Amino acid sequence: AMEGVPPAASPAGLSAYVAVSQLLGLMLLATTGAWLGRYRGGVAWHSPLQFNVHPLCMVLGMVFLQGDALLVYRVFRNEAKRSVKALHALLHGLALAIALVGIVAVFESHRTKGIPDMYSLHSWCGMAAFVLYLLQWLLGCGFFLFPGASFSLRARYKPQHVFSGIALFTLSITACLLGITEMLLFNIRDSYSRFVPEGVLANTLGVLLVAFGLVVGYVLTQDDWKRPPLPEELALSMDFKTLTEGESPGGGS
Amino acid sequence: AMEGVPPAASPAGLSAYVAVSQLLGLMLLATTGAWLGRYRGGVAWHSPLQFNVHPLCMVLGMVFLQGDALLVYRVFRNEAKRSVKALHALLHGLALAIALVGIVAVFESHRTKGIPDMYSLHSWCGMAAFVLYLLQWLLGCGFFLFPGASFSLRARYKPQHVFSGIALFTLSITACLLGITEMLLFNIRDSYSRFVPEGVLANTLGVLLVAFGLVVGYVLTQDDWKRPPLPEELALSMDFKTLTEGESPGGGS
Repeated sequence: AMEGVPPAASPAGLSAYVAVSQLLGLMLLATTGAWLGRYRGGVAWHSPLQFNVHPLCMVLGMVFLQGDALLVYRVFRNEAKRSVKALHALLHGLALAIALVGIVAVFESHRTKGIPDMYSLHSWCGMAAFVLYLLQWLLGCGFFLFPGASFSLRARYKPQHVFSGIALFTLSITACLLGITEMLLFNIRDSYSRFVPEGVLANTLGVLLVAFGLVVGYVLTQDDWKRPPLPEELALSMDFKTLTEGESPGGGS
Repeated sequence: AMEGVPPAASPAGLSAYVAVSQLLGLMLLATTGAWLGRYRGGVAWHSPLQFNVHPLCMVLGMVFLQGDALLVYRVFRNEAKRSVKALHALLHGLALAIALVGIVAVFESHRTKGIPDMYSLHSWCGMAAFVLYLLQWLLGCGFFLFPGASFSLRARYKPQHVFSGIALFTLSITACLLGITEMLLFNIRDSYSRFVPEGVLANTLGVLLVAFGLVVGYVLTQDDWKRPPLPEELALSMDFKTLTEGESPGGGS
């Protein structure tokens, strides 16, 4: 019904929610930086501060960049699908690379200090999130970015990709909250219960992580805010529906 | 298209996923009981064991019962909508009552032991989940169960109710994982890193909580598994669509 009409602007509500998500994302990074800089001595690689690279990279990669990668289809509504896909894959790839640096940081820091690896619930959840996120990225590139996969295979995999993507984003945020709790109980166990500023600041970071997840999740799950197919995609999709369903053009995913 | 046909059975995939969710739910409760019984001295009210009532009630109420309450529309596909709604509200009400007992237990236990309240990220997330869950229940009863709200108001509130419901279920599970991490670091801080059985068991409980959340979340978000409207609901819904949209019977939520 929109053919011939110039590309529609984003729905007003969508723009507001995306703006709030980016504000929350910047607050996340600022709060993480303030915590590490003001209370944990800052960040450095070849030093006892190497551990602090871990929370910084995980919040930046596994939360902020992963979240923004999920939003690109809602934000770039009139660009060619192929370009938006490439940006989606690129942001997730950058997120993975930064997360890998953060993981190397904590393993090296543990080795230096003689601390065992992978014993805590935080490490189990975080490692599961990272490994499954890498797998999801490889599968996504294989199905959607390289030209081999058939249109019907893509259409069948897409809902699984979307569900797994939101689940992994949620698990990543959960792993961050577990990491915050571990760091506080290891570093300020005795003063945490007296509401010292470091504890309140780190709790606030946790609340910001939840808020970022909620806003991104809300944007992703609004049916009205999904990227409308461009005219040429619509034609393809119609052909596909006709071929595979032969009926009920309004039903399905 | 199904008028005159006897009520369809649940889709096969749905039944399998619901069965797995219930198995995971029982494993959750068994694992929580094993942890508290074998390593934490068991559960009792007027005793130093009062704290242990807290994790038991929160896993039972805020996770198992809340999750099952979310599933009732997928499980009871051919019962009257009104009955399923009542069951949905009843299970959530039961979950809230049990969670309240768990919250009283931790506050009383803290008072007895002279431990401050509400300083940790776990307590912030958990209390936010409980208060918003209570609010969501009150709003749900007001909009959907009592006869006052108009059909169009219900239709507009429903997507918000569904999104908030899944978000609160996720936040509840996250709060449980934070609580597990706190309990382990307070009780077995020094031996946790040596993979002692209590630590591994409690981590496993965390993994089961995530798995339960994933399976319930998967069931809830499959479009094909949504409860099909009964013939009389369909007629109502068609009238409503015609009245409010006047077009595009296949579009929207």
